[in-house]
Amino acid sequence: MARPSPAPVGTAAATAVRQASLREHNLALVLRHVATAPRPPSRAELAATTGLTRATVSTLVDELITGRLLTEVDPTPRSGAGRPALGLALAGDGPVGLGLEINVDYLAACLVDPTGAVRHHAVRRIDLRPVPPAEALAMVAELITEADAEAARQDLRLAGTALAVPGLVTADGVVRLAPNLGWRDVDVPALLGAHPVLAETGLMVDNEANLAALGELRAGAPDPATFIYISGEVGIGAGIVLHGSLFRGARGWSGELGHVPVHPEGRPCRCGGRGCLEQYAGQEAILASAGLAGSPVARLVEAAERADPVACQALTEAAGALGVAVAGVINLLDVDTVVLGGVYAPLARWLAPPIEAEIRRRVLTAAWSPVTVRAALLGGDAAALGAAGSVVRTVLEHPARWLTTPVAGGRDRGRAGGGRPRSGG
Amino acid sequence: MARPSPAPVGTAAATAVRQASLREHNLALVLRHVATAPRPPSRAELAATTGLTRATVSTLVDELITGRLLTEVDPTPRSGAGRPALGLALAGDGPVGLGLEINVDYLAACLVDPTGAVRHHAVRRIDLRPVPPAEALAMVAELITEADAEAARQDLRLAGTALAVPGLVTADGVVRLAPNLGWRDVDVPALLGAHPVLAETGLMVDNEANLAALGELRAGAPDPATFIYISGEVGIGAGIVLHGSLFRGARGWSGELGHVPVHPEGRPCRCGGRGCLEQYAGQEAILASAGLAGSPVARLVEAAERADPVACQALTEAAGALGVAVAGVINLLDVDTVVLGGVYAPLARWLAPPIEAEIRRRVLTAAWSPVTVRAALLGGDAAALGAAGSVVRTVLEHPARWLTTPVAGGRDRGRAGGGRPRSGG
Repeated sequence: MARPSPAPVGTAAATAVRQASLREHNLALVLRHVATAPRPPSRAELAATTGLTRATVSTLVDELITGRLLTEVDPTPRSGAGRPALGLALAGDGPVGLGLEINVDYLAACLVDPTGAVRHHAVRRIDLRPVPPAEALAMVAELITEADAEAARQDLRLAGTALAVPGLVTADGVVRLAPNLGWRDVDVPALLGAHPVLAETGLMVDNEANLAALGELRAGAPDPATFIYISGEVGIGAGIVLHGSLFRGARGWSGELGHVPVHPEGRPCRCGGRGCLEQYAGQEAILASAGLAGSPVARLVEAAERADPVACQALTEAAGALGVAVAGVINLLDVDTVVLGGVYAPLARWLAPPIEAEIRRRVLTAAWSPVTVRAALLGGDAAALGAAGSVVRTVLEHPARWLTTPVAGGRDRGRAGGGRPRSGG
Repeated sequence: MARPSPAPVGTAAATAVRQASLREHNLALVLRHVATAPRPPSRAELAATTGLTRATVSTLVDELITGRLLTEVDPTPRSGAGRPALGLALAGDGPVGLGLEINVDYLAACLVDPTGAVRHHAVRRIDLRPVPPAEALAMVAELITEADAEAARQDLRLAGTALAVPGLVTADGVVRLAPNLGWRDVDVPALLGAHPVLAETGLMVDNEANLAALGELRAGAPDPATFIYISGEVGIGAGIVLHGSLFRGARGWSGELGHVPVHPEGRPCRCGGRGCLEQYAGQEAILASAGLAGSPVARLVEAAERADPVACQALTEAAGALGVAVAGVINLLDVDTVVLGGVYAPLARWLAPPIEAEIRRRVLTAAWSPVTVRAALLGGDAAALGAAGSVVRTVLEHPARWLTTPVAGGRDRGRAGGGRPRSGG
C-alpha cells in the first residue's frame, strides 16, 4: 500500500521509484541481518555483512530505531582493545502481532512482539459445535478487545491480526468448510471486520495447521526444511512445508490429513467418507477409547503418565493409525520430519514410538533415510502463536510499509517516527 | 562446461564474461519464443516480442540455424500487403535425445528431436527379474548401439542420453533400490558409462515416474500445473508436479505411491510392509485377479473391451484401491489432476470412473474442487519419451553449451557450424 505507483522508465520519477525500492530493500536487509545474527551486531558489523556503506547503515538503523523495529543494547564484552560499540537487536516494544485461534473446543488469543516473545496469552475452553458462527465470532471479538487493551497497557502497538480456523479458508478469508465446527461458507471478514481494531489494522484468516506449520518453521526448523506439521485436535489437519515454503495445493486445500483413509471400509466420518484417520486418531476417538470421553486432554496425559493400561493402549492404537497415514505421506513426499502439534504435542512421548515403528515397517527408504518424529517446538498453541508470528514476520519483511503507515483515526497504531505512545484502547 | 571461468569484477575479462552470459541468455530467449509461438515467427516478430534489436535477433538466429537448432520455414499466408517473411521453427533435424527405460518386464529406447517428434522407438519385452543387473544393462547397451545407428542413418546428431529406472536413484545415477527388479545399489554409470555413445555425450539416470511426469508436463499440461502422474507397471510409482515443478522430496525419494498402505493389515508386500497399494493395483495383481496371470496387459485390454465380467471386476477392484490412495493424495496435496500412465494408460477407460467415485466419496473438497482423472497424453511410453525429452529440453534451455561442444574423437556429435553430417555409428 505504501509502495510507489509505477512510473515510466528513464524519467526522474523512475529514479525516485528506484530509490524508494532501494530503501525498502535495504531496510529489510538490515533487519534480516540483525534478526539472524548470533549476537547483537554493531553498525560497523552490519556494514561489513550487508556490503552497505557505514553512512547508509546508520541512516537506515536510525530510521528503524525511531520506528521501534530496532533497539540499541549494551555491547557484548569482547576481547581486543577499544570501547565496544552498541549492539543492535529487534525491539521488544516494537509492533506486535495479534494471533487468534478458533477451534472446536477452545478459543485462543496471543500477542507476539518482534523478538518472538509472547506478551499476552488467553485461552477460553468452550465447545463451539452448538454455537452459531456469528456467536462464536462475537466471542473472538471479545478476545480481540481484551488483547488490544492489554497491548495498550504494555504500550505496544498492534501491527495486525491473523485468525486460525480448523477448516478450508479462501484467499479472501471465507471459511468454506470446517466440518468439525459445522461451518460452511462463513464470511469471517464480513462478520468480524467491523471491530475497530481490525478495521484499523486488518485481518488475515488462514487454516490453523498452515499457520502452526509456519510458526514451527520460524521457531527453528533447519533450513531448507521439509516437514509435515500434524495438528491433532477434534479434527486432524496438516501443514506441509517443502524446501522451506508452505505448500498450499493447487487451489489452497492441501493438508486434510484427517480425511486420508486408513481403513477404507472402516468407521463412517462426518465428511461422508469411511475410515478417515480422524475417526481413529482424532482427539475424541482417543479419549473415547481411553474411557475418558468428554474429558480434557490433560486427564489423558495424567493417565498416560501413571501408565494406565487403557489410556496407553488407546494412545498406541491411535498412533498406529497415525503411523499408517504418516508412512503414506513419507512414501509420497519424502519429508524428513514429522511434527506433532495440537493435543499431540503433550502426548508425543507416547505417540512417537508407535508412529516410528510404522515408518520403519512401511516406508521404502526408512532403512537409510531416517525420519524424525517430534513434538511441536511451540507446543499445543502453535496455531495462535504462528498466526501472531505471521503478522510480525510481514512487518519485518516489509518494514518500509510499517514505517510509513499513517496515523489512523487519532490512534497512533503503526505510526513510527515521533508518534506518541498509545493511550488506551 | 562451455561456461567461461570466473574472472575478477571490473576488468576486461569480466566484461567478456558478461557478454558471453548475455549471448547465452539471448540465444535461449530466442529459442523459447520460437518454441512457444502459436505459429513460426519472423525475425521481425521475434525482435518485437523479445525486445532485442533486429540486428541482434538476426545474428542469434543465424547462429541457431547453423547449429541446427532452428530452421526457416515457408511463411504462413497472412492478410496485409507485402511479401511475408520466412518463419522460424525448431529444427526437426537438430540434436536428438536418446531416452531409455528399464522396467520389470520390458526395455525401451526412443529418439526425440527438438520438435518433439519421435524418430525411433524400440521395445523389447523380457522379464528382467531373474536377470542380473549387469546383464540387463548389457541389453540396454545394445539398444543404445541400435539407436545410435538409427540416428546416424537419419543424419541426426545425439545430444545425450537419459535412462528411466523403476526405483530410487541417487543424484549420481546409482539405483539405490528397485524392489520389483530386485536391484540394490546398482552403479549404472559405472556399468554402462563406458559405452562409446555415453562416454561421448553423457548419461543421466532418474526414476521412471519422475521422467514420465516431466514428459507429461511438457506435452501440454496447463501452466502452472499441479498433478500426480501415476505410473502403473509391476510396481506403482508417482511423479508429483507442484505449480509446474517436479517435487522430488527432501532427499529425492518422493513418489513411492505403490507403498502407500490401503489395507493396513492386508497382503504382505515385497517391501516388508503390508497392504501396500501395489499388492492391489499393480499390474500383476490385476492380471491375477482377472484370471490372466502371466499374460501381457494387451490381453486384459481385449477382455475389458469385450466386457468380460471377470476382467471388468478385476479392474474395478484395482481402481477402488487406487481411488483410496488417490483420495489420500488429493486430501493431502490438493492436486487438481490425476494422470494415469504406464499400463494404466490403455486401461484408463475402465479405471477412471471407480477412481472418480472414490474421490467424490472421500475428498473433503470434491464437491466444489473438481479433479480430472485422465490417461497420460504420452500413453504407456511416457517414461522413455520423457527421458528423451529431458535431454532435448536441456539443449533448448542452454543452447550455447550445445553450440560450443567441441568435435570429439573425429565424430561430429554436438558439432555445430559447418560440421559434416555424421557418417555412421
